[in-house]
Amino acid sequence: MIYITRRERFNAAHRLFRVDFDDQKNEEVFGKCSNPNWHGHNYQLFVTIKGDINPETGFLVNLTDLKMLIREKVTNKLDHKNLNIEVDFLEGKYTSTEVLCVSIWEQLESEIIRLGATLHKIRIEETENNFVEYYGE
Amino acid sequence: MIYITRRERFNAAHRLFRVDFDDQKNEEVFGKCSNPNWHGHNYQLFVTIKGDINPETGFLVNLTDLKMLIREKVTNKLDHKNLNIEVDFLEGKYTSTEVLCVSIWEQLESEIIRLGATLHKIRIEETENNFVEYYGE
Amino acid sequence: MIYITRRERFNAAHRLFRVDFDDQKNEEVFGKCSNPNWHGHNYQLFVTIKGDINPETGFLVNLTDLKMLIREKVTNKLDHKNLNIEVDFLEGKYTSTEVLCVSIWEQLESEIIRLGATLHKIRIEETENNFVEYYGE
Amino acid sequence: MIYITRRERFNAAHRLFRVDFDDQKNEEVFGKCSNPNWHGHNYQLFVTIKGDINPETGFLVNLTDLKMLIREKVTNKLDHKNLNIEVDFLEGKYTSTEVLCVSIWEQLESEIIRLGATLHKIRIEETENNFVEYYGE
Amino acid sequence: MIYITRRERFNAAHRLFRVDFDDQKNEEVFGKCSNPNWHGHNYQLFVTIKGDINPETGFLVNLTDLKMLIREKVTNKLDHKNLNIEVDFLEGKYTSTEVLCVSIWEQLESEIIRLGATLHKIRIEETENNFVEYYGE
Amino acid sequence: MIYITRRERFNAAHRLFRVDFDDQKNEEVFGKCSNPNWHGHNYQLFVTIKGDINPETGFLVNLTDLKMLIREKVTNKLDHKNLNIEVDFLEGKYTSTEVLCVSIWEQLESEIIRLGATLHKIRIEETENNFVEYYGE
Repeated sequence: MIYITRRERFNAAHRLFRVDFDDQKNEEVFGKCSNPNWHGHNYQLFVTIKGDINPETGFLVNLTDLKMLIREKVTNKLDHKNLNIEVDFLEGKYTSTEVLCVSIWEQLESEIIRLGATLHKIRIEETENNFVEYYGE
Repeated sequence: MIYITRRERFNAAHRLFRVDFDDQKNEEVFGKCSNPNWHGHNYQLFVTIKGDINPETGFLVNLTDLKMLIREKVTNKLDHKNLNIEVDFLEGKYTSTEVLCVSIWEQLESEIIRLGATLHKIRIEETENNFVEYYGE
Repeated sequence: MIYITRRERFNAAHRLFRVDFDDQKNEEVFGKCSNPNWHGHNYQLFVTIKGDINPETGFLVNLTDLKMLIREKVTNKLDHKNLNIEVDFLEGKYTSTEVLCVSIWEQLESEIIRLGATLHKIRIEETENNFVEYYGE
Repeated sequence: MIYITRRERFNAAHRLFRVDFDDQKNEEVFGKCSNPNWHGHNYQLFVTIKGDINPETGFLVNLTDLKMLIREKVTNKLDHKNLNIEVDFLEGKYTSTEVLCVSIWEQLESEIIRLGATLHKIRIEETENNFVEYYGE
Repeated sequence: MIYITRRERFNAAHRLFRVDFDDQKNEEVFGKCSNPNWHGHNYQLFVTIKGDINPETGFLVNLTDLKMLIREKVTNKLDHKNLNIEVDFLEGKYTSTEVLCVSIWEQLESEIIRLGATLHKIRIEETENNFVEYYGE
Repeated sequence: MIYITRRERFNAAHRLFRVDFDDQKNEEVFGKCSNPNWHGHNYQLFVTIKGDINPETGFLVNLTDLKMLIREKVTNKLDHKNLNIEVDFLEGKYTSTEVLCVSIWEQLESEIIRLGATLHKIRIEETENNFVEYYGE
């Protein structure tokens, strides 16, 4: 069992809030991340997959295939976008890094199987001081 | 003459566009950065000042003073904000990294003199692949 | 189950030695880290906690709470300090990165529960080439 | 149980190909990594070992011993070398990062036991966007 | 006058040697970099250009144009290549980082003028410990 | 004229203070850096030299010679040491990063000439947020 990780990046705007809260209540709960005028981040996404080395190639999977898959299913939909209002797979969800992490797992899990491997971990770095990881359970 | 640099960070939303262009024309000129729903970045700001070492302390200036000044005059106004609509010193300006760099210079130049040093350079990193520098002339 | 990591930093002096060894024996066992005049590091601390996403907020815990807790219980006690002689929770202990890692776990384990999560890992980077991790068992 | 990781680096040339494929077929399967004139990388190797803290020293193992062992058994054989034709423990193998990772595990597993610890993980970063991990099973 | 820097990366094999030296003499002068079987690096290239901000756009130049130019004229010719035998603009030259830096300057200087800016600096990082800069004079 | 930079690292303890100040006054002026029990840092030193490329080798100077010189004259004297009491070339000086930077310049300036190049800049990074540069005038 070998583990391979691919890093992709996206730059996006977002806001943390609940529609049933007013601005003051949103700021109490979500702090400066609830700014109604949005803020944004350079997100780093690390997708880790696992499986056996293919004896015909020495590869787990072709990394170009993995890169193209992540871009098509995830980062092309997120990059230079507003996470709250423009992303199909985030509709109706919070855009916290935790929820983003789980949602990207759901986008990729079955696709990675089609590549001949198993999704192991999604990791998102929002800033150099904060990151979130999800293993699918 | 000694040079000291302080790094501060801010996370903000922005958009590149002209009001006299329609969305299509904006995308032609500004690319994906013109998304009307905003996008955002983790900006890194590097402020470099210069001057003589104070023989009483071994310092150019007290770094805590420099840090507090940058936060008060610049990064507290930018962090978790929308650069296009919430920042007094950016009103009516493009929010390209180039213009942001010059505008931060203008915010700090005279303040640094009050600290007993001279502003030498403003550097902003928008992503790990792009950065802008300005020396005041 | 989601995992969140917060990075905090502290700069400290320390020395590796045993009082029952003389300087020569200490240097044999602990190398240049046993210098009786101390040396120091920029330590990076990564605290990873785990738990369920709160459906009311999209958060595991509020990251500001986690940050303030780490600072109060750990890094404020370590930053710009001498690890061998000024830190209550290190009294009578070696100040190797291994022991430091376990001691920080003990400082935080029950506190993290009060935040509504579980401590998963303490990681300390002493230099860019060396780091230590502890999972509590 | 404590985990310690040591980073070492090596710069090497390599090529991904099969002798039973012609150049065109190799490029189809291995892409630009199959260039018959070689290409190269700055590889980063992270060796993680685990075990109990020695109550006599506060150490898992002496890090200098770990460093010297990794250099003698692994990185001195790889640094400034051609991975396909100059490395005894890679003879007859693909030089993909996956295979390299498993091969370094095999070089170090029994040696780490002699140091009084257990090998836990080998991680190799080939570029800032790709890395591979192996846990020995 | 504003300065913009774009980072691009390339991974290549090379060798430092003189044809009029035998292997022993080459090793004396060029060290392990003279290995006849090649070695390689992950090179980082930083291209800095300067000029006035365009009042119509807030840009010095469009960064996408700069990126495409660097790739077409420089990094596509270097990436996954052997610097000694496959690169037109390095023919008959040493492949030291110094010479590489000057040669990339010559490739880009007139092209940057066509973009409406002036080439200011070429910087190449060969490893995390070594880098070279050239200002065209 | 080509510029080459070599990075070396050292980990040291230090304290900022004046003997003619009491502890309270020292803390007023130097803040937490005046802790009488010392603190420490992982310092990064960047030595930049300049000169012409040697047409016989493609080098400015042999980087191994530069590395050995920096270690012998500077970093071996600083690494795992107390900057205030163990370093010959810092005797009687403040150990601020500013003074350290100028003092390292003085240690290296004439030595670099013997290598056949000119010292251009000394840069010291004390933390990821603060660095100092000196050009010798």
